[in-house]
Amino acid sequence: MQIVIIGSGNVAFHLAKAFMLSQIPVAQIFGRNEQELKSISSALNIPFSTERLEKADLYLICVSDNAVEGVSDIIEEKNCLVAHTSGSLPKEILKGQYRKASFYPLQTFSKAKELKYSEIPFFIEAENAEDLTILSGLASRISGHVMESTYEKRKYIHLTAVFACNFVNHLFSRAKEISDSQEIPFDYFLPLIDETVQKIHSVEPKKAQTGPAVRNDRRILELHEELLQGESLEIYKTMNHSIQKMYEL
Amino acid sequence: MQIVIIGSGNVAFHLAKAFMLSQIPVAQIFGRNEQELKSISSALNIPFSTERLEKADLYLICVSDNAVEGVSDIIEEKNCLVAHTSGSLPKEILKGQYRKASFYPLQTFSKAKELKYSEIPFFIEAENAEDLTILSGLASRISGHVMESTYEKRKYIHLTAVFACNFVNHLFSRAKEISDSQEIPFDYFLPLIDETVQKIHSVEPKKAQTGPAVRNDRRILELHEELLQGESLEIYKTMNHSIQKMYEL
Repeated sequence: MQIVIIGSGNVAFHLAKAFMLSQIPVAQIFGRNEQELKSISSALNIPFSTERLEKADLYLICVSDNAVEGVSDIIEEKNCLVAHTSGSLPKEILKGQYRKASFYPLQTFSKAKELKYSEIPFFIEAENAEDLTILSGLASRISGHVMESTYEKRKYIHLTAVFACNFVNHLFSRAKEISDSQEIPFDYFLPLIDETVQKIHSVEPKKAQTGPAVRNDRRILELHEELLQGESLEIYKTMNHSIQKMYEL
Repeated sequence: MQIVIIGSGNVAFHLAKAFMLSQIPVAQIFGRNEQELKSISSALNIPFSTERLEKADLYLICVSDNAVEGVSDIIEEKNCLVAHTSGSLPKEILKGQYRKASFYPLQTFSKAKELKYSEIPFFIEAENAEDLTILSGLASRISGHVMESTYEKRKYIHLTAVFACNFVNHLFSRAKEISDSQEIPFDYFLPLIDETVQKIHSVEPKKAQTGPAVRNDRRILELHEELLQGESLEIYKTMNHSIQKMYEL
């Protein structure tokens, strides 16, 4: 099966790398950013082009959400399978006469950071059982966690990831603002953060909750509110309210 | 130096264990919960009592915040040092004629979970330089991260920890609610969560932010709001607002 990856960002790089490590040849990486393509091409030994899209059985579109539709239009082939890698787009966003699919790896990708591909969950959607088998088979050669998923379900997967990843990172940003303001090194909080996350590998998060809100410690809650302002104060109130609702306090 | 630990909870257990592992003898653990004391006593080979508090040079009070004041009152000794282990109480909460101090380990403790004590930051406050030296010396035998800290500073340390630990855990709880509602195993999100936290060991959280809010992707933000309700919707709006303020979007 001839595979072409479209895009030169973090997802394109890591999927291409995961394929290479699993001995799945990639015929071409195609995109607009020649410098990025060159760097991926030389790192992984895959031909690249910014001009001529190679004929393929499978095109994987690894570009940002708002570029998927436009990019999907340049594939003129009809007898092929095209999958995007977005968590929050329907496969019908793809414009073309080909068979459409979604191939969604649930992970946050940065080029510099090595990843264990075998642990990344892949969520697959296709128009028919045969294409589903093709894509599931491909994902299974990379990872031990491959699931079928509708667009409807994928929306919730993405939403869960926003809470568990994007919002968590923003809490770290706001936490660092607070510690920076007192010249306390944020590094001091890393063991605590690591342990917080380690814990939910074995304990349900709802059972692992600690802190003043779940203890309903009014003295500390009021003391903390006096130390905060602006968005951090809003977050403080919203999170405590939500905690107290969850535990019926 | 004769050391007595007061309390039988997670902090008492882990401090006692850290002392034993660092070859610092603990003369007694004292408390009300005989069953817990017995279990710590037999695990760590430390005498316990629920009735007669041993004479000591240093008493470490490891009980919950609202019990600290009451417990501090049972120490009748005058020529001794007494430290509580709370992140959000002044040392003056301690009632007695002895020298007062605070000995605050920044970590989340559960009995069942092993911890690397050498990585736990300790924040120390005392009435005079000599007591500060005693407590810093003690903490330094357990951990490589020992800092002096005023009550004022400790309040901010605790507040930072609430954002980076308590609130993060609550986001995991709300995320799990969402994935549970669609029968998507929450375990699938653990590699993503691990990677999110791994990242901030090398990248500033503010620079690591991803997701629809920082991309200002109105389509997804609106789509997600339609999927949410109640406290989770409130969190969604508050966090996105805070993200967009931070990045001036």
